[in-house]
Amino acid sequence: MTENTTDNLNIILPHQIRITEIQTHDIRFPTSLEDLGTDAVHIDCDYSATYVKIFTDHPKLVGVGLTFTIGKGNDLCAACIDFFKPFILNKTIADLENKMHSIWRQCTNHSQLRWMGPEKGVVHLAVAALFNGIWDLISKYHNKPLWKYIIELNTNDLLDKLSFTYLDDAISRSEAFVILENKKRDVAFSKKNIIKNGFPCYTTAAGWLGYSDEKMTKLIKNALANGWTHFKMKVGQDINRDIKRLELVRKLIGPNNILMIDANQVWSVHESIEYINKLKKFDLYFVEEPTNPDDVLGFRKIKDAVPEVNLATGEMCQNRIMFKQFLENGSLDFCQIDSCRMASLNEIIPIMLLASKLNIPLIPHAGGVGLCEYVQHLNIINDLIITSNDIRLSEYAESCAEHIENPAIISNGHYVTPLKAGYSAIIKQKSLEDYNFPSGKYWKSVL
Amino acid sequence: MTENTTDNLNIILPHQIRITEIQTHDIRFPTSLEDLGTDAVHIDCDYSATYVKIFTDHPKLVGVGLTFTIGKGNDLCAACIDFFKPFILNKTIADLENKMHSIWRQCTNHSQLRWMGPEKGVVHLAVAALFNGIWDLISKYHNKPLWKYIIELNTNDLLDKLSFTYLDDAISRSEAFVILENKKRDVAFSKKNIIKNGFPCYTTAAGWLGYSDEKMTKLIKNALANGWTHFKMKVGQDINRDIKRLELVRKLIGPNNILMIDANQVWSVHESIEYINKLKKFDLYFVEEPTNPDDVLGFRKIKDAVPEVNLATGEMCQNRIMFKQFLENGSLDFCQIDSCRMASLNEIIPIMLLASKLNIPLIPHAGGVGLCEYVQHLNIINDLIITSNDIRLSEYAESCAEHIENPAIISNGHYVTPLKAGYSAIIKQKSLEDYNFPSGKYWKSVL
Repeated sequence: MTENTTDNLNIILPHQIRITEIQTHDIRFPTSLEDLGTDAVHIDCDYSATYVKIFTDHPKLVGVGLTFTIGKGNDLCAACIDFFKPFILNKTIADLENKMHSIWRQCTNHSQLRWMGPEKGVVHLAVAALFNGIWDLISKYHNKPLWKYIIELNTNDLLDKLSFTYLDDAISRSEAFVILENKKRDVAFSKKNIIKNGFPCYTTAAGWLGYSDEKMTKLIKNALANGWTHFKMKVGQDINRDIKRLELVRKLIGPNNILMIDANQVWSVHESIEYINKLKKFDLYFVEEPTNPDDVLGFRKIKDAVPEVNLATGEMCQNRIMFKQFLENGSLDFCQIDSCRMASLNEIIPIMLLASKLNIPLIPHAGGVGLCEYVQHLNIINDLIITSNDIRLSEYAESCAEHIENPAIISNGHYVTPLKAGYSAIIKQKSLEDYNFPSGKYWKSVL
Repeated sequence: MTENTTDNLNIILPHQIRITEIQTHDIRFPTSLEDLGTDAVHIDCDYSATYVKIFTDHPKLVGVGLTFTIGKGNDLCAACIDFFKPFILNKTIADLENKMHSIWRQCTNHSQLRWMGPEKGVVHLAVAALFNGIWDLISKYHNKPLWKYIIELNTNDLLDKLSFTYLDDAISRSEAFVILENKKRDVAFSKKNIIKNGFPCYTTAAGWLGYSDEKMTKLIKNALANGWTHFKMKVGQDINRDIKRLELVRKLIGPNNILMIDANQVWSVHESIEYINKLKKFDLYFVEEPTNPDDVLGFRKIKDAVPEVNLATGEMCQNRIMFKQFLENGSLDFCQIDSCRMASLNEIIPIMLLASKLNIPLIPHAGGVGLCEYVQHLNIINDLIITSNDIRLSEYAESCAEHIENPAIISNGHYVTPLKAGYSAIIKQKSLEDYNFPSGKYWKSVL
């Protein structure tokens, strides 16, 4: 696999390697057949990826990036990437590294496509896939896992790549500089620890709403046996069923393990207050997405009404401007950055920096396709050079790992730190071929 | 034109007419050639429409709907509508009238497509086009202009069609009922007046950034001669040029005519405060979109810093949840509803009702393709059965009127009330054929 082999590449200078081709693929896995990913509003998820391959004139250097979707619309996202190709093709690795922010703004602020957003929905997901691929490419060129490439960048070189557009009322570049420089002082020590111990995570894999009580019980018992201590359950289809399930879960995991719930936006603000009051007796670490993900002020109303319960949101938080408001307004207690909805590290890192400034913990969203692989890097970057908050936690949901070349490895409830070059989310060639939509072998056989 | 002929249709019962086919068209007009629509961030707009035709088994009854875009991405929006067809095909007119809200939720809350939003960007624009077409179809069946169909609906029948999902913390259905019932008491008198006098509007047509001072001067002089009294200018590319242009405009229109400016999101919050302080001496009626359209709290920061200047926003406000926050938070002074970005009247009317509750005036966004035709109806509906606010104003920018069958007519700075059946935005058949992208005659000749 060329996508995974990058040793000794940087004996060639970065301005000598040029982007020659960008391929997009609409990849869909039929996960709806097994109720994977089912929650109060997503009842038939086919975990999917808009997948991008960025080829260079060096046969060994290929960047891959993806954004996660749940089926229909993945084709629109793939088609959208075509509009951005002219900004990337023929650029050198040096161009991508040195002019990254202006190229990113060409895409996110495209003079015609911005009408379809701006910076949200299909067009923003497309930018996410493309820039995830660009970061993968650059770090492979340097033969480093992405987290290592980032933490070893000179602070100004890193800041040059990021977007603080529309953020300056909340965090300035110079404040960001200070946060990074202060935190970097003990990076050597932390790095040793993180490579040794990994990064703690919680599991969502037992909690899908489509699962029967029997299946859920079996999965939780397995998880306990494998060392898991943090569990997230889906709620929101029926409050009485939610109460019964949470009674069962709390009994299974005992009083000391951590329990959180996720309503996936199904309640109004008033319903959120009513139902959270009914469910809080289960000692909830947080309630995720009680209501609409756009509702900065609605989340705050819920928090004001039930101040003893923490709220989490972010997997559908569309961009840095929305996160800025959620963070500044105290509308969330846990910031659940999504590696594929935000337009890659270019706006994720600025939001991590703002969360650090406000001392709000980060617990990235994961699961789906490739998200676990991506968040490993985000967690380490945040932990080593950004946050000073003590809470260290990340989501994990084993899904579609069989299609990933080197999937995230979990040991005793911890992500094992990835050491291979790149950004880790590479789909196996055979899976790309079989699950290409609609022409791959699998889809041909069922459509 | 079948799309325009509906007399005597309702001798056939509404459950006897069925939707048989839905066609989508990607229509683009090369307006970038004349700098039409140019502002601080949209430098090369090709005014476009994702255009939907809804055919029935009655040859004389065809609904048409559109959403406005500015070029690239119009194809994605057209493709997205295909996913919603199964929810509409084979439905009767009676189904559409009686189950409209549940059909609308099937589309806006589609279990897979909602991941691409939810309720924003490409997928939401697609719902807008489709439901603009459905409202057009229903009102044509009743042989009434849409505004008349709406104001004559029984209040509960109207409310049944609308979405208050995620709004109940700001406005309840029963509050909405009271607003409508109270206002309807004097509808007969107001209706007579609005048919006689039309609805006041302001013009944007002279203010595009790409226009030279000479062209702008000529257009303003023409507009003054034609009775215009309200003028909007684009700003934001260069503060010194803005000052010079506004000096010229103020001199041309004199101290008594109304002047407003539109920065099209180009400033950060800090820059907004700085530049608005520099420009406020020109006696501005409002400043539109100083910063990012998602930034509810940022707008409020600007208002708090320069309380003497009114702010307006809305053409990029993605859905009712965002408008709820802008309105409740006092982040805007004028609510610029967009008929094609919001998912049609189903969520526009609830926002009008909330604005009415909070006594915030509505000044809908228009221009582009079909927007002026649509907002005529929204203004009248708001004026006759919703708002109690005294300010009556709407945008007008003559653009692409030559492609519309019965374009909005302006007389002495007022929209002349449309009296034909339907929702008014019908593109001429020849324009549909010539400007179909990329296969129409015009695009074939230039691509």
